[in-house]
Amino acid sequence: MNQMTQLQATEKKPLPAAFAAALATLFGTRFSVAQAVRAHHGRDESAYDPMLPDAVLFAHSTEEVAAAVRLCGQHQVPVIAYGTGTSLEGHILAVQGGLTIDLSQMAAVLAVHPEDLTATVQAGVTRKQLNLAVKDFGLFFPIDPGADASLGGMAATRASGTNAVRYGTMRENTLMLTVVTADGRIIKTGTRAKKSAAGYDLTHLFVGSEGTLGIITEVTLRLYPLPEAISAAVCSFPSVADAVNTVIETIQMGVPVARVEFLDENGVKAINAHSKLDLPVKPLLLFEFHGSEQGVQEQAQRVQEIAAEHGASGFEWATRPEDRTRLWSARHNAYFALLQMRPGWRAITTDCCVPISRLAECILATQADCEASGMPYSIIGHVGDGNFHVLLLVDPADAAAVDRAESLNARMVTLAIGMDGTCTGEHGIGLHKMDFLVQEHGAPAIDTMRIVKHALDPQNIMNPGKIIRWQPAP
Amino acid sequence: MNQMTQLQATEKKPLPAAFAAALATLFGTRFSVAQAVRAHHGRDESAYDPMLPDAVLFAHSTEEVAAAVRLCGQHQVPVIAYGTGTSLEGHILAVQGGLTIDLSQMAAVLAVHPEDLTATVQAGVTRKQLNLAVKDFGLFFPIDPGADASLGGMAATRASGTNAVRYGTMRENTLMLTVVTADGRIIKTGTRAKKSAAGYDLTHLFVGSEGTLGIITEVTLRLYPLPEAISAAVCSFPSVADAVNTVIETIQMGVPVARVEFLDENGVKAINAHSKLDLPVKPLLLFEFHGSEQGVQEQAQRVQEIAAEHGASGFEWATRPEDRTRLWSARHNAYFALLQMRPGWRAITTDCCVPISRLAECILATQADCEASGMPYSIIGHVGDGNFHVLLLVDPADAAAVDRAESLNARMVTLAIGMDGTCTGEHGIGLHKMDFLVQEHGAPAIDTMRIVKHALDPQNIMNPGKIIRWQPAP
Repeated sequence: MNQMTQLQATEKKPLPAAFAAALATLFGTRFSVAQAVRAHHGRDESAYDPMLPDAVLFAHSTEEVAAAVRLCGQHQVPVIAYGTGTSLEGHILAVQGGLTIDLSQMAAVLAVHPEDLTATVQAGVTRKQLNLAVKDFGLFFPIDPGADASLGGMAATRASGTNAVRYGTMRENTLMLTVVTADGRIIKTGTRAKKSAAGYDLTHLFVGSEGTLGIITEVTLRLYPLPEAISAAVCSFPSVADAVNTVIETIQMGVPVARVEFLDENGVKAINAHSKLDLPVKPLLLFEFHGSEQGVQEQAQRVQEIAAEHGASGFEWATRPEDRTRLWSARHNAYFALLQMRPGWRAITTDCCVPISRLAECILATQADCEASGMPYSIIGHVGDGNFHVLLLVDPADAAAVDRAESLNARMVTLAIGMDGTCTGEHGIGLHKMDFLVQEHGAPAIDTMRIVKHALDPQNIMNPGKIIRWQPAP
Repeated sequence: MNQMTQLQATEKKPLPAAFAAALATLFGTRFSVAQAVRAHHGRDESAYDPMLPDAVLFAHSTEEVAAAVRLCGQHQVPVIAYGTGTSLEGHILAVQGGLTIDLSQMAAVLAVHPEDLTATVQAGVTRKQLNLAVKDFGLFFPIDPGADASLGGMAATRASGTNAVRYGTMRENTLMLTVVTADGRIIKTGTRAKKSAAGYDLTHLFVGSEGTLGIITEVTLRLYPLPEAISAAVCSFPSVADAVNTVIETIQMGVPVARVEFLDENGVKAINAHSKLDLPVKPLLLFEFHGSEQGVQEQAQRVQEIAAEHGASGFEWATRPEDRTRLWSARHNAYFALLQMRPGWRAITTDCCVPISRLAECILATQADCEASGMPYSIIGHVGDGNFHVLLLVDPADAAAVDRAESLNARMVTLAIGMDGTCTGEHGIGLHKMDFLVQEHGAPAIDTMRIVKHALDPQNIMNPGKIIRWQPAP
């Protein structure tokens, strides 16, 4: 990738011996400089080549993280937080080497308060683990990025997924955090109260900061009652615009749809081949409804009426779990179904989000661009939020194809920003979208971000080289 | 009040002549040093005595605000943003004098995007004005603090109100802001995309910052479809715990109640007298349900079943607007009904918020404290959020009574913080709760807030003396 040249040029200092000795003394075998351990922590699910940290620490407590960060500060060693390694834009790559703190062994569910619909977890707890822990209380946690990511990582990247249209993202569902700041202090960013007007919103300052302002070690989250009834529906549309307009009207009518996912013709083709289905090769919407028995029936009926007005066909409605699973398998298999069309190739995933009134236009222009590129692709979208992804298949050996994919991504992002949208709906900035962030926010807002970064991390040790480039404070 | 002594000791510099001359040249009669104008801008709805700015500017655009703030920076003059003057904790009082920028003439609804359910307004637009502007699109904006406050002020104080249990607060409903920072730059904090993972969350950094980090000049907000059907219900309970437990179970069952308000016996007595009603003198809950015809029926029925299990009596249910109004008049008149019990006296309003599992305990302890104080009082609450207020009546001439009210407030806040709650659910910190903010967050988190304040406002010109006390950066 183009960025690689630049990244490799970054100056990288060796780990100070006194620093390594201090960590080894404090943490024993939980501090490692083994090549295999470093290699495991030097890549994520982005298309970047690995960039290894110089050492890895497996932390067991907030206090341990604070002790390690203080040492990093004393020795000016970069420090990167690591959860499950499933970030998509190079967030955890050790551009300048340094220490990676792996939080996956901080995996305790610290408290569940069913009456308050909250849970507090250590940062390494994954979303599926949390859901298992709260299921017996009749509760669930809705945020579902594709991977079974750690909740600390999800908070750090402001993740979301298919349920966000109804339940919001990590932004709306994180009540408070425990954070270790660059100077090794431990702070609590809020309380368990559902709302508060008390001072600066530190919680939201750290949510989405990708480890560049501090390391999230504990997260308090909102939970929701498991719906009494769940139903799903699928239908096909003559055009992308018809599908998107169905979603716009559904939301404008106030139908509290829990999920609504879009799949383009290529995606449908791929899953037909992969799962031996015979869905019409047309733009597809998949809905999920949560509520009372009566409520989900009513929702499905309304959506069917709206969809019919937009030429929908093949409306299938399912309330039984096994039927829902069959319908949703279409969505869940899309990524792998597409990958199987070109064995050995790699998928590059894009991510942008626009106001929903511009979504059809944005998808259609992107689709035309994808067609012109000649690359295999599929477009999937969390359309209720105006968020969509293009999955592009590239032969990793074909540098020109990788460049073409990057160019296509750049045009798509530029288009989205021009439509009052954002360069990333849910994947984050990481290494990959720093220039787009400037394009989206403009220099004055980036300067404000830079002022905050300089103030909270004056030595630039916290995940350096991510989100914004280090420059003198404005 | 006790705080007054301290406030009056604050050093106050006279307005530099060159500064005043520059503003007069730029803005003509929209820049005023008239006593009456200053007096109008020197008080809010808190119990504080007035503290007047040295001058007032009526701004008409973001660029004008930026020009004025740049001058304030050059001359080190404090600058305070003013909307409708309805803040409750002394937010807009000119502790150190300086310039108040009145934004009430920035009252244009700049854009309504009905398909995206968003509107962009100038900071001086009030919530009622916005609701009028979007009504014909079949939309509404739900956040309703008591006053018809400006949306800039509501964003700056992270306001909420009775609808927050369903629709969230200004935190959840502000998509992006235009802000003038302390150095006079104009920044856009986000985009109109419904979700974004792009960089630091500047929007939420400024929401709730009470003008201490920058001046909000434009706000982009989420709108909602007007519900197809609305119904209301009222019922009485044998005890506070029964009322609160009804709410807990309602929310745990996933009933999407739009509003649920609590009124104690004293409140009921006052409104019975004021509105010639004969409601049972018992803890009362008022509900409002939004949804489809069928949906609101179902919600009301479920709530009635839950309430019945907790000994509720007198369940009344109303779907016609006039009947709803009659039921809700109880809630809306509570403040004035109580005030009428002691003509000439003043109401002091407290505000705290706890996890709902602790709410009954917190209200009961506070009620006992109120009883012991001998002061007339009433407790009302946005109980679905765990947020409640005590209205205390004091004779303003009776300094000892004012002190007693302050002590009671302090005990109530300390209790709430000890229950993992917050010192303010929706009124903010202002001048009044700075010590409680420290108590709630702890020194390390306050230091982090202070670092942010110093970085973004190094001269301490933005609404100085609010939220956190000015001290050297940690």
